[in-house]
Amino acid sequence: MEEMVGRAFVDHYYHLFDHDRSALSSLYQPESMLTFEGQKINGAIDISAKLNELPFDQCRHAISTVDAQPSTFVGGIMVFVSGSLQLHGEDHSLRFSQMFHLIPTGQGSYFVQNDIFRLNYG
Amino acid sequence: MEEMVGRAFVDHYYHLFDHDRSALSSLYQPESMLTFEGQKINGAIDISAKLNELPFDQCRHAISTVDAQPSTFVGGIMVFVSGSLQLHGEDHSLRFSQMFHLIPTGQGSYFVQNDIFRLNYG
Repeated sequence: MEEMVGRAFVDHYYHLFDHDRSALSSLYQPESMLTFEGQKINGAIDISAKLNELPFDQCRHAISTVDAQPSTFVGGIMVFVSGSLQLHGEDHSLRFSQMFHLIPTGQGSYFVQNDIFRLNYG
Repeated sequence: MEEMVGRAFVDHYYHLFDHDRSALSSLYQPESMLTFEGQKINGAIDISAKLNELPFDQCRHAISTVDAQPSTFVGGIMVFVSGSLQLHGEDHSLRFSQMFHLIPTGQGSYFVQNDIFRLNYG
């Protein structure tokens, strides 16, 4: 089950990121946390602002792997992603890893409680 | 706080991995889950067996980044690691990413509830 939800979440997340980035705010809540390349940002408003002010207008994520596990004690899902990120007008792409801790909203969907993103240098 | 605990856990985990791998079993419990390069393994006994049967006797982990966040609803900690793994007798090292979801044991320490490991190819 968590595999299907995890995969569906990942497809939805990166589709929004690449095509309608401002809509990502709907996936976060006031208690959400993002660590982006070591920078900590709390809450849907500030997280959305951070994602929207990233210094590239267009990008395309290509997903290599998606691993999912249940987060037993909260009925949630852990999702771990590896992939690459191509910026508009750039030839090469950047490898990244990202994890999400998804928590049920109580209305049949999930929000992102924890989000940690890192580029894989070297 | 979670930064200090996360960093201490990471130092402890990879020290054991590189010097006393069989002792890693103490960090897992029956409900623990490991996904290792896409292979799912449940429970401390099977996880420990998997880690001990990896096809290299000696290795050395070098940690590049450690990110930590509180796992709010369970009083736990999310830890996200990137680094490289050097196998004994090999010149080059392998980049990896790994995440841990740590849950309090109730005796002042933490166990690994979720563990997802991936090598970063390409």
